[in-house]
Amino acid sequence: MALDINCDMGESFGLYKMGDDEGIMPFITVANVACGFHASDPTVMRQTVRLAKANSVRVGAHPSLPDLQGFGRREMKMRPEELTACILYQVGALKAFLDAEGMALNHIKPHGSLYGMAARDKAVAEAICDAVSVYGVPVYGLAGTQQEEVCRARDMTFLAEYFADLGYGKDGGLIITREHEAVDPADSAARCLRAVKEGRVASVEGNDIPVRAETVCVHSDTPNAVEVAQAVRGVLDPFIKAA
Amino acid sequence: MALDINCDMGESFGLYKMGDDEGIMPFITVANVACGFHASDPTVMRQTVRLAKANSVRVGAHPSLPDLQGFGRREMKMRPEELTACILYQVGALKAFLDAEGMALNHIKPHGSLYGMAARDKAVAEAICDAVSVYGVPVYGLAGTQQEEVCRARDMTFLAEYFADLGYGKDGGLIITREHEAVDPADSAARCLRAVKEGRVASVEGNDIPVRAETVCVHSDTPNAVEVAQAVRGVLDPFIKAA
Amino acid sequence: MALDINCDMGESFGLYKMGDDEGIMPFITVANVACGFHASDPTVMRQTVRLAKANSVRVGAHPSLPDLQGFGRREMKMRPEELTACILYQVGALKAFLDAEGMALNHIKPHGSLYGMAARDKAVAEAICDAVSVYGVPVYGLAGTQQEEVCRARDMTFLAEYFADLGYGKDGGLIITREHEAVDPADSAARCLRAVKEGRVASVEGNDIPVRAETVCVHSDTPNAVEVAQAVRGVLDPFIKAA
Amino acid sequence: MALDINCDMGESFGLYKMGDDEGIMPFITVANVACGFHASDPTVMRQTVRLAKANSVRVGAHPSLPDLQGFGRREMKMRPEELTACILYQVGALKAFLDAEGMALNHIKPHGSLYGMAARDKAVAEAICDAVSVYGVPVYGLAGTQQEEVCRARDMTFLAEYFADLGYGKDGGLIITREHEAVDPADSAARCLRAVKEGRVASVEGNDIPVRAETVCVHSDTPNAVEVAQAVRGVLDPFIKAA
Repeated sequence: MALDINCDMGESFGLYKMGDDEGIMPFITVANVACGFHASDPTVMRQTVRLAKANSVRVGAHPSLPDLQGFGRREMKMRPEELTACILYQVGALKAFLDAEGMALNHIKPHGSLYGMAARDKAVAEAICDAVSVYGVPVYGLAGTQQEEVCRARDMTFLAEYFADLGYGKDGGLIITREHEAVDPADSAARCLRAVKEGRVASVEGNDIPVRAETVCVHSDTPNAVEVAQAVRGVLDPFIKAA
Repeated sequence: MALDINCDMGESFGLYKMGDDEGIMPFITVANVACGFHASDPTVMRQTVRLAKANSVRVGAHPSLPDLQGFGRREMKMRPEELTACILYQVGALKAFLDAEGMALNHIKPHGSLYGMAARDKAVAEAICDAVSVYGVPVYGLAGTQQEEVCRARDMTFLAEYFADLGYGKDGGLIITREHEAVDPADSAARCLRAVKEGRVASVEGNDIPVRAETVCVHSDTPNAVEVAQAVRGVLDPFIKAA
Repeated sequence: MALDINCDMGESFGLYKMGDDEGIMPFITVANVACGFHASDPTVMRQTVRLAKANSVRVGAHPSLPDLQGFGRREMKMRPEELTACILYQVGALKAFLDAEGMALNHIKPHGSLYGMAARDKAVAEAICDAVSVYGVPVYGLAGTQQEEVCRARDMTFLAEYFADLGYGKDGGLIITREHEAVDPADSAARCLRAVKEGRVASVEGNDIPVRAETVCVHSDTPNAVEVAQAVRGVLDPFIKAA
Repeated sequence: MALDINCDMGESFGLYKMGDDEGIMPFITVANVACGFHASDPTVMRQTVRLAKANSVRVGAHPSLPDLQGFGRREMKMRPEELTACILYQVGALKAFLDAEGMALNHIKPHGSLYGMAARDKAVAEAICDAVSVYGVPVYGLAGTQQEEVCRARDMTFLAEYFADLGYGKDGGLIITREHEAVDPADSAARCLRAVKEGRVASVEGNDIPVRAETVCVHSDTPNAVEVAQAVRGVLDPFIKAA
């Protein structure tokens, strides 16, 4: 049984800093690297890929709707073929920095509103898969969504994400908040371990719900993100696949 | 002896149209495709690459300074490593569309102000070569410039461009005008043929000057660009290398 | 009874040209000038305002969602206060060029998707009015929409647009096509005159429907836009208010 | 004798935060507010203007070259009329938020590379003055530069800046560093007081040099910026003019 810990990395832009990439990178196994449409720029992308390489972290693309000012969190209506081209552009741009370092593209994880739209809207999920199919890498997403169904129908690899630092509702839905609050690292790690081993987690209401943890996501904008990542890595290390 | 006819293609943006790509594509052998920093967008890039493929035209990248509003024609001072990252980003983005079509990257030709800066400024030429070296493709540029010297010092392939629709000064310098005027297609073609066969062309002052025509550039924004391209292709066809 | 003929103007961007502003300007009375978010740039804005002034055409702002690549035609979900700020920014930017020419801001007409969203969504209409109220100018929009209702509830001036070059459905709805087709100038003019005088027009199905024509819009991207504008101005001239 | 303490404010962008505007605002008298071309966005501009108003701080525009990714710190070659339009656009955009709050535009201070270019290049200084003349407000700049000369020749008000947190060379030149280091607040304040009262300051080499302090600038990106601003305000308060 193999497992990954993924985190959104490389979300700085020009002089603007976001997230403690240096602090988190040692504890994750794959980085979802921003491609310049919601965050990042060519210089940040190059530095992020090099930082990942130095930490033996594999790199996936984290493409977004084209909305730097809104950090990719404002839904936009794009035609499917326009969206596919938009994702190809971003993945290709990231791949240049991987090529420069002799690294392979590991996966693709849609960012922000695109992630949510792909869960609900089949045309969006198809448009994403149209881009991903050029690279033949796995797609990260929410279990039981349009994105998973489309991947399955096309025989493309889909990995269901478990979120180490978010709560789950009694029906299995993620509790998404505008800003991420600090969570107890030990508690997050214990929940993670159970999610991975038993496929179950306690909801915020207290009942036990099934979850799938094919890849575990830690957020870099949780206030104590490094501590959470470290704790999660501590308990999951035995399950981490050799790179 | 092999030869190419190259042209800047794919410079439309969103609803904005520029150039008659469909008209010119049949007469060229390689397309310098804009990468979104001075012109183009992901949708235009995808269409342009497909149009090139349909015409058996090979595709190179045409990266620019990041200046869509100025069409890459305003000089900007960027640090070399920033410039390298900026070029890698663009070439990678284009390569996504080539990967999607199963095509190879043919060459890299800097656009606009970047082309002129690379001719004069060694640090800029080095920064470009730092990016190109990831791909191992030829660089197109002006003969006898810093760009050529840097390529030579690094054992990278450099191809000197002859411009079919521009005049040359008595000392060999290009006469660059803000807007390209219509030129006589037959005359352009005849001059091209002589440049290719004899390495000589008449200057605007009337004297004979040496030129190198390792790749011939026709502009898409000359008013009668299609006619010029057709005439040039007509006389150069025997010299064109098989793709 | 006073009347205006309005047209979207100043939609070029950098080297990209759109519309025949010089051709149309003599036949209109007010220009809706793009503010840089869906089209235009500072240089184009300055030229457009000066062209309007030279033709004694009054100038209104034509703000958009922030989406240059999509020409403001892709819906985006923005929070209302974010949208208000976004509109204020654009109107203010345009006002700089009016201030430079000693001209007053005449009106505000939302562009593209923002125009349609304001018709259907009360929160969007309110956000627009929050911006417009800083200037105390009329809002142009579709009759019978949320935008009109919100203006009415706030005692703000709303002017209902009649579209000279579009068809109307049997229930009064506009027939909006992705690309505008050429229309018969004489026919458009005759329909316009009747819309203004009688408040009625024939639908595409043939029945007679009521319309309100408080301001008449001609599009600049209809293939024969200048002829249409000229014909419409010809019949409406008696109704045009003195500037 | 009246005096101002100015500071660059409102340089956040979307989710990206920069500077402690809330901390510094109480100690300054005028804010140079970013206009979206090197930093800021419409929402940040609105919040910054409101924060200034709440602190009885007057607001000036801080326009930049169009380069968000480079934070306006990369020189660009723009034609003068293009630059004037670019500045008008930004000042107008800011003015919308001032109009919304019933505030007046206080001054214009070019940002980053534009500030330096205006000091050295007469055409740039003229282009800036062409924009400023629409508003009739003072220009902030370096004493003894092209910017000052052009203002003087045109009878426009120019205010020479003294920088509270930077060192001066023995010939009076500013010591500009890429990143601002922490400075001793008490020492900065004492130097400021002497600059204001005596027009003299000690250079980094130790000799006494003349300076003009018609407006005192404190930077928001000095690590202990709030402490410096507070100390400077403490000693300069008697010289501050009533708003």
